[in-house]
Amino acid sequence: MKGRLYGIGVGPGDPELISLKAVRVMKECDVIAVPGKTPAETYAYETALKAVPEIGSKPVLGINWPMTKDPEELGKIYRTACDVIEEQLEKGQSVAFLTIGDVSVYSTFIYVMKLVREDGHRVEMIPGITSFSAAASRLGESLAEHREMLHVVPAGYGGLRDLPGTTVIMKAGKNLSEIKKFAEDHGRTAMMTEKCGLPGERIYRSLEEMPDEAGYFATVILFDR
Amino acid sequence: MKGRLYGIGVGPGDPELISLKAVRVMKECDVIAVPGKTPAETYAYETALKAVPEIGSKPVLGINWPMTKDPEELGKIYRTACDVIEEQLEKGQSVAFLTIGDVSVYSTFIYVMKLVREDGHRVEMIPGITSFSAAASRLGESLAEHREMLHVVPAGYGGLRDLPGTTVIMKAGKNLSEIKKFAEDHGRTAMMTEKCGLPGERIYRSLEEMPDEAGYFATVILFDR
Repeated sequence: MKGRLYGIGVGPGDPELISLKAVRVMKECDVIAVPGKTPAETYAYETALKAVPEIGSKPVLGINWPMTKDPEELGKIYRTACDVIEEQLEKGQSVAFLTIGDVSVYSTFIYVMKLVREDGHRVEMIPGITSFSAAASRLGESLAEHREMLHVVPAGYGGLRDLPGTTVIMKAGKNLSEIKKFAEDHGRTAMMTEKCGLPGERIYRSLEEMPDEAGYFATVILFDR
Repeated sequence: MKGRLYGIGVGPGDPELISLKAVRVMKECDVIAVPGKTPAETYAYETALKAVPEIGSKPVLGINWPMTKDPEELGKIYRTACDVIEEQLEKGQSVAFLTIGDVSVYSTFIYVMKLVREDGHRVEMIPGITSFSAAASRLGESLAEHREMLHVVPAGYGGLRDLPGTTVIMKAGKNLSEIKKFAEDHGRTAMMTEKCGLPGERIYRSLEEMPDEAGYFATVILFDR
């Protein structure tokens, strides 16, 4: 009997924002997998451990996940991660792969999941609260009302587009100068959270307050209202 | 001592997809508020009650919420809802206003929250899992990878736009013919969930399978990959 792979979105970082289902599956599964060489130092594992201390006694697969955009290198990383996980599944172990935020939005899990599924294993995704939903709540703002559109774009690929409605820019830390200029040029209101719900959280309610650089977990929201 | 108003996203409908924080606040609060004349019949209340049976013994404010797009009528509805809630807050009662999905994405709570906040009351938003995150997980698909953008648009306001990346169309039930034609014309892959995670759930994995009409809780996802 082969095990099953679960991709679990553990939410934006506040351990209380994990779902009941994520908690249950983490308790029931045999092995935890986390993208990061040192699992205990990742936000995903740290967040999950605070919510479900029981996982501390389960074996943890640290999936080495260097920050690269090189397709060939990425392909190798995914294959290695897949092999490590499948070794457990073949032994009948169920594996919970933790990712911060939601599992379907820019998550590391997706790439591994596709390979594991192609190899004939059973896979289940458990959605989580996105960082932008958490940022909006923390700021006390809505992302979309009535007929407004909501756009979510990853930072760092160049070319912010002038789209009507609200635009969320994920992982914006290194691109703040460019984003601030775009917001100014297009007359947008800008707000930002950094490490929302995590230790060291910072909140910025205007373009003027926003720094020119921030860490990896920076989420910018541009409003056209 | 005035009470506090909480806006709680109870997630997409599966009671297990409620967050630990939402569960705690629902247990701690004095009064539950739900948009809908008959609260017990709303998905938000039904979902919450399954996860937290204790709320069954708490008083429930049913906020009458007719489906209208008329701004004047909407204004009156928001004001009445606000008055009903503020009456409780003035008595020192804490109120948990439940909405399906996330509280910042097309939620009924936002409009009431603004008025209540303007009147000087303390308000807190608790984010939830969106219906589109749940739909993607249910379908085993990702919403955004690498440099892809994600767009979320409400159905029924006309004029679907040809945007690169993934487009989620919310509350798409009445507009399926138009959406299907758009997807065909622009060569998009289309998938859909109806009542995702709720009794009567239906899943459609292609344009060909999709019906021409569906209920209120239909979420369409258009992919350009």
